[in-house]
This record gives sequence, C-alpha cells and structure tokens, in this order.
Amino acid sequence: MIVVLKKGATKKQIEDVEKRLIELGFKTHPIYGDVKTVIGAIGDKRNINKNKILLMDGVEEIIPIMLPYKLAGKELYKEASVIDVDGVKIGGEQLVVMAGPCAIEGEKEFISVAKKVKQSGASILRGGAYKPRSSPYSFQGLELEGLKIMAAAKKETGLKLVTEVVDTRDVETVDKYVDMLQIGARNMQNFRLLKEVGSGSKPVLLKRGLAATITEWLMAAEYIINEGNEKVILCERGIRTYETATRNTMDISAIPVVKNTSHLPIIADPSHATGHAKYVPQMANAAIAAGADGLIIEVHEDPPNAMSDGEQSLRPNEFGDLMKQLSKIAKAVGRFL
Amino acid sequence: MIVVLKKGATKKQIEDVEKRLIELGFKTHPIYGDVKTVIGAIGDKRNINKNKILLMDGVEEIIPIMLPYKLAGKELYKEASVIDVDGVKIGGEQLVVMAGPCAIEGEKEFISVAKKVKQSGASILRGGAYKPRSSPYSFQGLELEGLKIMAAAKKETGLKLVTEVVDTRDVETVDKYVDMLQIGARNMQNFRLLKEVGSGSKPVLLKRGLAATITEWLMAAEYIINEGNEKVILCERGIRTYETATRNTMDISAIPVVKNTSHLPIIADPSHATGHAKYVPQMANAAIAAGADGLIIEVHEDPPNAMSDGEQSLRPNEFGDLMKQLSKIAKAVGRFL
Amino acid sequence: MIVVLKKGATKKQIEDVEKRLIELGFKTHPIYGDVKTVIGAIGDKRNINKNKILLMDGVEEIIPIMLPYKLAGKELYKEASVIDVDGVKIGGEQLVVMAGPCAIEGEKEFISVAKKVKQSGASILRGGAYKPRSSPYSFQGLELEGLKIMAAAKKETGLKLVTEVVDTRDVETVDKYVDMLQIGARNMQNFRLLKEVGSGSKPVLLKRGLAATITEWLMAAEYIINEGNEKVILCERGIRTYETATRNTMDISAIPVVKNTSHLPIIADPSHATGHAKYVPQMANAAIAAGADGLIIEVHEDPPNAMSDGEQSLRPNEFGDLMKQLSKIAKAVGRFL
Amino acid sequence: MIVVLKKGATKKQIEDVEKRLIELGFKTHPIYGDVKTVIGAIGDKRNINKNKILLMDGVEEIIPIMLPYKLAGKELYKEASVIDVDGVKIGGEQLVVMAGPCAIEGEKEFISVAKKVKQSGASILRGGAYKPRSSPYSFQGLELEGLKIMAAAKKETGLKLVTEVVDTRDVETVDKYVDMLQIGARNMQNFRLLKEVGSGSKPVLLKRGLAATITEWLMAAEYIINEGNEKVILCERGIRTYETATRNTMDISAIPVVKNTSHLPIIADPSHATGHAKYVPQMANAAIAAGADGLIIEVHEDPPNAMSDGEQSLRPNEFGDLMKQLSKIAKAVGRFL
Repeated sequence: MIVVLKKGATKKQIEDVEKRLIELGFKTHPIYGDVKTVIGAIGDKRNINKNKILLMDGVEEIIPIMLPYKLAGKELYKEASVIDVDGVKIGGEQLVVMAGPCAIEGEKEFISVAKKVKQSGASILRGGAYKPRSSPYSFQGLELEGLKIMAAAKKETGLKLVTEVVDTRDVETVDKYVDMLQIGARNMQNFRLLKEVGSGSKPVLLKRGLAATITEWLMAAEYIINEGNEKVILCERGIRTYETATRNTMDISAIPVVKNTSHLPIIADPSHATGHAKYVPQMANAAIAAGADGLIIEVHEDPPNAMSDGEQSLRPNEFGDLMKQLSKIAKAVGRFL
Repeated sequence: MIVVLKKGATKKQIEDVEKRLIELGFKTHPIYGDVKTVIGAIGDKRNINKNKILLMDGVEEIIPIMLPYKLAGKELYKEASVIDVDGVKIGGEQLVVMAGPCAIEGEKEFISVAKKVKQSGASILRGGAYKPRSSPYSFQGLELEGLKIMAAAKKETGLKLVTEVVDTRDVETVDKYVDMLQIGARNMQNFRLLKEVGSGSKPVLLKRGLAATITEWLMAAEYIINEGNEKVILCERGIRTYETATRNTMDISAIPVVKNTSHLPIIADPSHATGHAKYVPQMANAAIAAGADGLIIEVHEDPPNAMSDGEQSLRPNEFGDLMKQLSKIAKAVGRFL
Repeated sequence: MIVVLKKGATKKQIEDVEKRLIELGFKTHPIYGDVKTVIGAIGDKRNINKNKILLMDGVEEIIPIMLPYKLAGKELYKEASVIDVDGVKIGGEQLVVMAGPCAIEGEKEFISVAKKVKQSGASILRGGAYKPRSSPYSFQGLELEGLKIMAAAKKETGLKLVTEVVDTRDVETVDKYVDMLQIGARNMQNFRLLKEVGSGSKPVLLKRGLAATITEWLMAAEYIINEGNEKVILCERGIRTYETATRNTMDISAIPVVKNTSHLPIIADPSHATGHAKYVPQMANAAIAAGADGLIIEVHEDPPNAMSDGEQSLRPNEFGDLMKQLSKIAKAVGRFL
Repeated sequence: MIVVLKKGATKKQIEDVEKRLIELGFKTHPIYGDVKTVIGAIGDKRNINKNKILLMDGVEEIIPIMLPYKLAGKELYKEASVIDVDGVKIGGEQLVVMAGPCAIEGEKEFISVAKKVKQSGASILRGGAYKPRSSPYSFQGLELEGLKIMAAAKKETGLKLVTEVVDTRDVETVDKYVDMLQIGARNMQNFRLLKEVGSGSKPVLLKRGLAATITEWLMAAEYIINEGNEKVILCERGIRTYETATRNTMDISAIPVVKNTSHLPIIADPSHATGHAKYVPQMANAAIAAGADGLIIEVHEDPPNAMSDGEQSLRPNEFGDLMKQLSKIAKAVGRFL
C-alpha cells in the first residue's frame, strides 16, 4: 500500500509513520516529492488495522495497491472455474439457462411450466419458496411446501433446482431439497447468511446487491469461499440508478469486468434487471453477447395471475422463441446453448 | 388507483378492464381523453395482485394514489410518536444523543468511554457486539461477551443501550441485554429479521438502507409495526451516490420529508454518513437544524487503534465540544439537548 | 392529467380546483374516493402552467398521463425514422459504424487511420476538432484546422464526417465542413446549442447526458426537432453511477426503451461508456444484440500517444477484428453491417 | 504520481516504464513488492499525457497523488477568499442571502418582490432573464428586457444583481447589466462559457452540475480562474440520486468538504435542491449550520402564477420568517446575517 503524507508533514511525523509501519511488519520505501511525501509499504494489509497508520499525525490517506479479495480473484485460480450443479456445468463453453416462475404457487402449475421450459432448453428450474417482498401485505411464499413441490418437479423433469434462501435458520432445510442456493440482492451483505451457505457444500448463486460495487460483490463471494465453499456463481441483476424507465439499470459491463478480475462464472437476470417482459429478450441477447455464462429468466404460464413479478415474466412460448434467438447469439460468440 | 389504457385501446379492452376491476371489488370511473382513456378505481389496492389488471390487453400502466404504507404513515397516527427507551423519550422537544464506539473491544475501555459520553450529555450508549464487515478478514465483534460488557456499562453509568442485531437467531439474546435493537443499513430489507424484532417489545432503531428510497424505508418500518411493535425510530445514515469525497451522501432532506409523511421519530448518524471525523460536527449541526430528533455518533478514546471505523470516530473531548455546539443549534430551532 | 387532492380537502377546495381547470380549458371528471378525491382533466397540459393548479389549497400532486414529448415520440411518426447522412442511412436494416480518433491531431495520422477504419467497414469518420476537456490544462483541439483535416480525409476516403460542436458561435462553421453535428453529453441540456443545430439542416448525433433520464434525452431531441430539424440520431454513451470499475455505466436497456417510445434511431458508444479499450468489444457486441442501429468507436493508431482518451481507443487491427465479430452478432439479430 | 505495474510484469517492462518516466521529466522511485511493483514518479503530471505511461506493456494503473486543481485549491491561497460583489462581501463572517423569483416576469412585480426581500434582509437580488427549461414549450425568459428590469430594480432598491447566462454570445450583454453572472447546473461543464466568464471581471456564481463530483466542480472553477477571473463563488444545489421525494438530493456534506479543500466561498440553493417550498426552510437552516457562506432562495409573490418553478418558491412573508430563523442559526455557529 501507499501511505500519502499531508503537504507540510514534518520530518518527525514521517519518521513516526515509517517506524509504525515497520512495527506492523511492513517494509517501507519513502519517496520525497516536491510537495508531498509518500511511503510505499510492502506487506499484507489485510491483517492489519489501517487506522493505526491513517489516523497518525501528518497522514492524508492510504492507497491500497492489492485487491481486497484473494479467493474470488484470479491470483490463486489461474483458470476460469467451471461449477457443477448436480451434473450441469456452469462456466464452460455451453451456456446454462435457468427458468421458471418467480414464486411457486402450486404443484400442478409448477410442474407444467417446468416441462415447458425444459422443452425449450432450460437445464435448471427456478422458483421462489421464500419470497423477500418489499411490502408485508404481499404473498411471502409457500416455504417448506414450495420446496417439496420443487423436489417433485425435479423428479418429474430431471431439471436441477435453484431457490432463494433468506434466513440462516432455513439453510439446512433448503439445502436438502435443492441443487443450488440463491442469495438474493437484498441479502448480498447479510454476512451471517453468506457464512451459513459457505459452510455447506451446495453451489451458491450470488446475486449482486441493489447498489453493490463489483468489489463489494466479490467480497461477498470471498465470505462464502472463505468458509470452505468454492462453488459460487455470480448473477448480475441490475443496479439502482436514477433512471426509472426500467426497474433497475442492468450493468452489462459488469460481465466483462468480472471476467477480467475473477475466476468465477457469471450469469445475468434480465427479468429483475428490467422489470418488464418486453425488454427481457433484448437484454438476454446483450448479456450473452457480452460474455455471460448463462441466464436466469422468469417464465409463468399466466403472468396476469402470477402471485409475484408477473409483469416481468415471459410466457412459455415467448421463452421458447427467445431460446432460439439466444442460440444464434451464442454461436456468434463461439458458445452454444 | 388510476388505470391508464394504451393509446388506441379498443372499446372491448376498456370494458374488459372495467369488468375485471369490478370483480376485484373496485368502484370504477372511466374518463375518455382525446388520446387515452383512464379508469379511476376506488378500493384497497394493497390486497389485490395488480398484475391481474396491468397485464390485460390494452393496459399501459397503473398509477397508485394512496401511499403503500399505513402504519408508518400519518393517517392512523395524527400526532408524532414519542418512543420510550427505558425512560429516555425520543421524538419530543428534548433531543437524544446516542454515542459510543463502533465496536465493543473490552470492558475497561467501553466503560471508560461510556462515562465520558455521559458526562458530555449522551443518554444512550451505542456499541457493536455483532459487526457486519465488508471483509471476512476484519474483526467481527465480541458477540455475547460484548453484550455482557454493555450490560456492565449500563449498571455503572445508567446509560440506556443500543446495539445492532444481524441474525434472526440472535434476536432473543440481544433483546435480553439491551434497551433498543438496531437494524443496520445492510439488513434494512432482511424481512425475516424485521419480523423477528417486530414480534418483540423493545424499541427498534431502523437505519436506512444503503440505496433505499424513503418509501422503501417506511415499508421496512411497516414490516416491524405490522408484527405488533410500534416502537420504531428511523435513522438517516447516508445513501450511496457517485460522490466519493464522503463515504456516503447524507440525505439531510430525508429528515423534513419523513416528518412530512410519517409519525415516527428520526435521528441521524453523521459518522457513517461522512466516514470522516472531520466532517461529523458540521453534519451533526445540519441534522439538528433540519429537524432531527437526535443523533448517533461514534466516539472512541483512541481512534487510531479502534478495531472498526476509527477514521470516523470522535475523541471524547471532540464529542464534548460538539455537544456544546449542538446545544446552541437545538435552542435556535426551539429544542434542547 | 390527474389532479390528486389532499386527504381531507374540503368541498369548496375541490370545486375551486375544478373551476380553475375549466377556466384553463380542461374538461373535468372528479372521482370521489374513500380517502382522497382525484380529478381527471382532459386537455393539453403542455400549454398551461401546472402550478396554477398544483399550488391551490387542497391539491397534493398532479400526475401527467401523456408523455411530455410529441415530436420525438411515436405518436406522429408511426414508423421508425431512417436518417440520411450524405447517403449513409441510419436506422435501417444495415448497421452503421462510425470510427476514428477522439481528437484530430494531424492530417497525415488522421487520413491514415481513416483509410484503415474504412477498410474494416466503417462508413462514417469521427474526430474531435473542438474538445470539451474536464481540465483546462488538457489539449483542447485543433478547431478550424481540425475541420479542414476532416474535409481532406473525406475527399481522400469518401467517408462521411461527424464531429462535436461545443459553442453556438461555431455551429455555422462546423456545419460547412461535416455531414453530421454531434452534441456531446455535457451539452445535452445546452438548450441554445440545441436550438442552433435545430435550425440547421445537417443531421445531429445527440449524446445522452451524463445523468440524463431517457425522458430528458428525448426532450432534448424535441428541442432540436421543434426548431425544424427532424434528423436526430440518439447515442447512448453510459450514465453516471456509483460503480467505478468502468468510466460510466453503459445503459444497454436504454436501447430497447428508446425503440419502444421513440421513432428516432439509436446508436451506442462503448468507448466513452467503458473508458477501457479492453471492454469495448463485449459492449459493442451487447449493444448490437440489444437492437442498436450502429456504433461509434474510438480508433487510434498509437493509443499511448493519443492526445485524448487513448486508454479507451482500439488499434486499427483490433477494430478490424471487432467488425468481423459484430458482423456475426448483426446476422444473429437479423441485420447486417 | 504512482505507476502500478501488473502482477508478473517483466524486468524489461519495468525498466521501459522507468525510462519513459525519466524522458517525460519525472524522478523515479521503483518499489518492488512481493506481488506487484510500483514506481513513484515525482514531477508535474498536469503537463503530460498520462497515456504515454498508462498504455505501456505491463502497466496496470496510474494513481495521482496531487489534486488536479491548483487555482481552486488551498495551496496557493492560504486564506479563505472573500469575494466582493459590488460592495457585498461573500465568504466573511456575515452571511449573504440572495433572493428573488425564478424568472423575471414584469417590472412591477419584480420591483415589488425586490423591495420585500430587501426588507427581510437579502442583499442580492436574483432573477432569471435567460431560462434553461427542460421543455421547449416552457417560458424561456424575457432576455434583454429582463436585464433592463433588473437594472431598474437595482436603481430602486440598491440590491446587487445576479442572473444566469446560458450562451457565450450573451456574456458581454449580461455583464453590462448585473453584478454577478451565474453559471447554471446544466452548463457547469460548458467549457466555452466558463472561459468566457473567466475572461471578464464580474464575480461568477458557479452552480454544481446535476451529477458533478466535487472535484469536477472545482475543475470548472479552475477553468474560470485560469482565464484570469478569481472571483468564483460555488453554489451547492442538489445532485441527482435515485431518491424521488425531493427534486434533487441536497449534498450538505459538500459544504464542509469544499471548505476543507478550497479557498472559495460556498453558498447553497435549497429551492432547486428540494423542489418543494415546504422543505426550503429546514434545508436553508441545515446549510447554514453546516458552514455555508450564504443562500440563494426563490421568492415569488404569487407562486401559483409564477411562470417558472412556483412549487419551490417561498412567499415574501414566508421568506421573512425564514430570515428570522436563519439569524438564530447563524448566531449559533458564530456568524450573522
């Protein structure tokens, strides 16, 4: 890291900072500029309290040189990770599409839509059993009953399962029923929940927080991996901006940025990002064209009567058309569905 | 609510929408404009699934007229609420200042700083026992031991206690030790945690989420009140913007906006909002001048060695000076410390 | 528009509002809800001062039903506009790529890069003669000399020309030399400049402002069209968010949103959006996959020595590779380069 | 500045970078870390093209140590500047309040409101002659006639004058009539306009751009000062965020940040920041409590019939009440009105 001293810092102050750095285990390299002095400090910043330096007299700021994440970064993992979700590989040449309704509403309806998305090429089935809703008056999910319906749908279709977990107390139960646990945007910095899924062995689909930087998102992945579970898949789902034409602003550029700094696979969720079914196809196209490893898309047989997020759900036939389109885009970037 | 039909919607489509609205229990009032038709629909939107209308053919959008929150709003509570935290009243003419270190580090240090903030006029003692940290490598708090230290400090000083709870599994324990439970910014939409503290009886200090709108924040309060606990105090602590000179952008205008739409008390946290001790006094001044009911301020006897957030902590003497200043501002707006 | 009365508005207040609306030429339709009254008002809101209603006693808010733009919207123009830039058509099945250096630095270099981008398939040549730079110490452009170099490059290569104009006093001169005038992001709400280019006849490339909503952007187009010049092409170039991994956050979803609400063509600028040459190809792919009508891309033969924005410039061979890739994406979405 | 080399940069690459830095006039200090090498480079970065280094093989990033502005910063000006607007001093112990209507609508009305704001303690009269409006269908101002009305009001009341200039072609004319030229938020990066007012001698009121960082804002001031005009007063007027309860989010913390990094005076505009008259008093209070040198406030005798921004205008009696309140806040922070 680089310690920048204030303009006019005294010789004594500079020496004190250098001394403290050495005590903390750093090798120091002061550079005396015309106006300001900076000290290069070599060592592992993660294990020290930076305020021991930052708040010393004469210190202006500390500039980190190394990234704060190690396990989610590229240094230890030279190659892109491919994560296995009960046989479905995410991060390889083949793209993975997860589809299904926002909330599980009943067994019959769920299995019916499952069969249709499978037929169109989806390999993982999504469905919400525990729903985080911004209003306490909205449908909150079928909970355990929903998980059982998911299991039945897997038995019937062979599709792998992903569902969101919202409480540390539910992790054990959810883990029994599904193949991949989703951490939703609102819980991206629910660190206890991250640790809980990190101490399990099932893959984790980690959505980006509503206003999380890419660095914070990778630090959330770091929490999970640091507990022992390396199977993290990132999911871009839009960030909050001032623009109101879409529910969120889908940060497509996060895809190449993550590919550049992390070994983890990344997929995209155009349904939550846009909030409007009519924009989902173009944004699904864009995500694949930008290098995403897959998509998660909301599909419902009767959107007007969906108990959650109907306005952003595709009908099964629209999903089928989109899959054909996506197959062409995939081919154009050297991948396949 | 107002249902806006698309330009060119057919007579049949308009009739179908009206029919559906009536089935859902609304009284309808269509208005035929030169270009578009709108239907005024009278009834309680909260209990219906708006997609049953929104996704019908010919419908463009639904515009709500009523606010989504009831319990956190002003309709049922004509007067501003005053909340009692073991004898300390928040929301009245007297301002309430909560102070203490970011994290509890040891009993001796904690009691020492507690005595000092009390002497300067603080009435509630803050301290973190469970710390949500963005890095898994940072100090995560003393947990139960921290709570016991808090209790000892209360016994010694008489100060009331507030601490953050980060996991539904800890609520029962935390509830036993402190006088007010804090929901942190990162957990503002951890709905299970909101329900858990909502089913208790201790006052809840609800921080605004990192990128939460004021409406979402009041909906989070609604979750708590809807479970039976009406004792919610809001806390503005800065929102995420593109500006990097401060850790967050303190939305001082949220104070008069909340006063205008809610009966709940609101305090401000200039420490987390700015992230720099040097800006805390001016922003504390500003919050009181804008009508806040109190403040929560980080104070540490040795900021360079604080285990968390030292860069934004005041020293006890700086806190004492600030309290004298605040007393003048309070008087200027007709209140007192 | 819908006028919402406050809860508890008196009969007299409601009648006064209705009376005023009628005086202003509206037809009124009051709807008496259980809690609030609203009045539907039919007429053209654009020509009245809404405060004459909004600030009356008992009025809470006014909700517009019609969009604020007419000329940039889809109501008067049923079909998507195709704009002719000296023979190059923008908005049709064929995609248009504009390429060239950020700033014009010299005739020899400019013509050399012009030939290369032409060879790779660009049909319009970009280059900055007047540079808006955030520092007064940075290179500000060759101005008139730059325009002459552009003209020479057109003569040599046949490429059409686009350049930015930053001052009303320069519009006449710039108009003489180039085929399309660019309004940069920083000037999107420089209304005098919009009027000036609106009173000319050359097509205008209107970049989205740094933090402009899509509605504000279309209102800026409205300014130009309202002066008589219908030839407006929109350009998405990233918006300001809190994310710092990219220079701006490219709002790819603006592409389908604009296609849904406006008849104007829209292109994308992945160079300014990302600020890093390494992310340009993926974002160019994404824009085309999402339905953009073309791209504007910075290309420089020697980025390290470019006088402006070298870090986001592709080298000619990288641009050539990208064009081949884009051609596949274009085909996948039913278009061609 | 600090040049950070990529992990794995070769010895040759490091040497090449160092050689190039020396050629560019820097003194170099390489520091070889365990993972990455950085090179401290001493010299004036402003006069070089950083891409000559940034785009070399093996270079990851360049971290500036010095601020990009000199003239707007504190290095050359040890003391806070006090700026004289025809006898009214801005930046001293006495706070300065500018007040008046958004737009000038007629001589009689303008002089009437001028007298009233003077009586309440305002010393500078504001009024818009050239109005930047987001819709081309809105009132655009009386232009020259408006300036003449301003001059008449000054003659009658002795109040000093401030008005916005929106076009380089108008600067000469506006300069003749008023005492201070305002650069509006939308033109904060209209660099030609900045240069034009910078080459004049009248003080300039520089509003912060809609989404400008504090650094960009100070760079805009730098443009003006660099042309020779040192009389710049900054004005915080709210920034764009996702929150919609207020027109903009007033960044009160910008006040102490500017005081910490610049010698220029700073005032605040609570009218544009909030967009609602009902929130203006609290935010005016907050700005003064945070250390602002003054305020600019919209006052209109008949807000419902104001031709621009009526919803955020105070009535003269409300302004009078506010001034009394502000006087108390001023005293509480050691200043006076």
